[in-house]
Amino acid sequence: MREVAIVSAGMTPFGELWETSLRNLFVQAAREALEKAHVTRVDGIYVGNMSGGQFVGQEHLGPLMADHLGMAGVPAVRIESACASGGAALRTAFFDVASGASDLVLAAGVEKMNDGADVTNVLATAADQETEVYHGVTFPGLYAMIARAHMQAHGTTEEDLSAVSVKNHHHGALSPRAQFRMEVTLEQVMNSSMVAEPLRLLHCSPVTDGAAAVLLCPLDRAAEFTDRPVKILGSGLASGSFALADRPDPSFLDAVSLSASRAFQMAGVGVADIDVAEVHDCFSIAELCVLEALGFAKPGGAAELTRAGETALGGKLPVNTSGGLKSKGHPVGATGIAQAVEILEQLRDEAGARQVKNATVGLAQNMGGSGASSVVHIFERV
Amino acid sequence: MREVAIVSAGMTPFGELWETSLRNLFVQAAREALEKAHVTRVDGIYVGNMSGGQFVGQEHLGPLMADHLGMAGVPAVRIESACASGGAALRTAFFDVASGASDLVLAAGVEKMNDGADVTNVLATAADQETEVYHGVTFPGLYAMIARAHMQAHGTTEEDLSAVSVKNHHHGALSPRAQFRMEVTLEQVMNSSMVAEPLRLLHCSPVTDGAAAVLLCPLDRAAEFTDRPVKILGSGLASGSFALADRPDPSFLDAVSLSASRAFQMAGVGVADIDVAEVHDCFSIAELCVLEALGFAKPGGAAELTRAGETALGGKLPVNTSGGLKSKGHPVGATGIAQAVEILEQLRDEAGARQVKNATVGLAQNMGGSGASSVVHIFERV
Repeated sequence: MREVAIVSAGMTPFGELWETSLRNLFVQAAREALEKAHVTRVDGIYVGNMSGGQFVGQEHLGPLMADHLGMAGVPAVRIESACASGGAALRTAFFDVASGASDLVLAAGVEKMNDGADVTNVLATAADQETEVYHGVTFPGLYAMIARAHMQAHGTTEEDLSAVSVKNHHHGALSPRAQFRMEVTLEQVMNSSMVAEPLRLLHCSPVTDGAAAVLLCPLDRAAEFTDRPVKILGSGLASGSFALADRPDPSFLDAVSLSASRAFQMAGVGVADIDVAEVHDCFSIAELCVLEALGFAKPGGAAELTRAGETALGGKLPVNTSGGLKSKGHPVGATGIAQAVEILEQLRDEAGARQVKNATVGLAQNMGGSGASSVVHIFERV
Repeated sequence: MREVAIVSAGMTPFGELWETSLRNLFVQAAREALEKAHVTRVDGIYVGNMSGGQFVGQEHLGPLMADHLGMAGVPAVRIESACASGGAALRTAFFDVASGASDLVLAAGVEKMNDGADVTNVLATAADQETEVYHGVTFPGLYAMIARAHMQAHGTTEEDLSAVSVKNHHHGALSPRAQFRMEVTLEQVMNSSMVAEPLRLLHCSPVTDGAAAVLLCPLDRAAEFTDRPVKILGSGLASGSFALADRPDPSFLDAVSLSASRAFQMAGVGVADIDVAEVHDCFSIAELCVLEALGFAKPGGAAELTRAGETALGGKLPVNTSGGLKSKGHPVGATGIAQAVEILEQLRDEAGARQVKNATVGLAQNMGGSGASSVVHIFERV
């Protein structure tokens, strides 16, 4: 298979974007990526989206977005894996180029969550309807159970969860496109409203509209489009037990671990080589569980890394320099692509106040549901 | 890229399957395909599904289905392109194997439409919410407008539309898994209730539950799994103008024509080489438009082919020997895979009373929306 590069990116601000429709968000992000590369037509489009149908009554987003980009005719499909839809779209685009089937491919994610849908219940369709949602649990409850299991197994505290939120808001305050571009204190997090014990409001990612896009091509053509390509070194996708109750240890995310080992194997690098990472902190507990499943800490060890400042800007492994899902926002189908955009900017030295010095290799991890699907990509500055 | 074969298939009966859930339909079809090939684990799963979220409150079908097949861990994603979701899933699986990324890949489609959702409005989310559905039109209305345009341009009559239904029910009566396994007369079709003038009830495909699955592998490994592999010669996907009003000629389906030319080019064969075809007759007018866009007839010429019996069993090019969407049923996300199952059986001489003699090369065409997306696959007996 061929080596593949990302040559440009586009991203809308994330937030409550009442004035912009689903299709216009997509076009805004996609057009930015295309214009930066001086490209007017691509060979394929992959749309990452969890539920245009339930959120705004619009499925069939592949041809809709191709048409609204002025590219009717171009092959275009939607890829869905709940909140990992963006990462899954990036992966499909990556293999489309790597295989030699296509040269210029756009991978873009979008979600419009603030247009009146019953968001918590729409998101819950990514959980198991028969064994979970039917009984009344939605994602705050599922992640609260993961947090309780983690606390019981490893002595994790509410302060540990809160430290993740403080750190990610600190990063997000430096991030121009973040939905909540402000610092929060440990006290504010610890005193925010209880959502699902032990998870409080400031442990939860917000409801967000937004879109993000990246343009891929064979590495040997990258110079036509940019002088700063970033190579995709590896891609790993895994599924796991769908329902939380089926997992022997709900505090360890098997699919994340498996997707990471696949991506590391393909990339030929290890955890020690990663300079910067974006991970799926849909709830603060998720960042701890993901860092452990990725192998950056032993099970139960991510809280200590966080307390020691190692995952903050200036630490050994800055995590979620974009602000993460918590502060940047989480338009679910766009998140996996937005993570790639942040890593791209870091590896190109374009991250401004959030810049990690000498970042050469970066990782993005995007998760679906309570961890039933996970996608990991590893990127390298060329 | 590598040559790719389909080595086995599975399919549920199509119909109102009140006793079986979405996940169990999927597992039933997938398990049949796996067991026939003596396979217990695959390298990847692609789930074709239009709207599990809106129909039964379940998104995130990749990992759900992998888990319920006993394959937690296996990479699994959902592919959506409205009613072309099945064909798009088959295409993604095809390139996954062709690229060398995976060896054994399952492509399966499923839809559960009879569990209480407002089906016509759910399906309408595949049309343009802003310029079509907002104004009250749903798919019967959109295809009625296509029929009117075809009548005006080519003199097509209600009898011409009805002849398609009569022919497809004739085939479906011979098809053990068809939802409506019965003949209908021209008089019955012409006197059935009006749905959207000029389309009557018996010009419309039904609301259907069902699933279908095919197992793919590199052609050079096919003998491990079957002595009757069928090779995928070519695959073409295209988008087109999303809204009907944006098309210069609503009676000609540009995306179908483009997807066909891409598939024929890849396959290195032409229309004259096709011995049997399954095409997307969601409404009877669609079969005529599709046959013309595929190049089997000139624009306006498909009605004459149909009247002459050329598209019936025994004719020069039997079309929809399965009964088509009209008689076999149309569980939207499963349809594209079910078409491949029929072509597989034809090319393997397994089609029983529906068998086309000496069928060597077959074609399947699967459409999304009012023709905004189309996937064409061409298959050859090995």
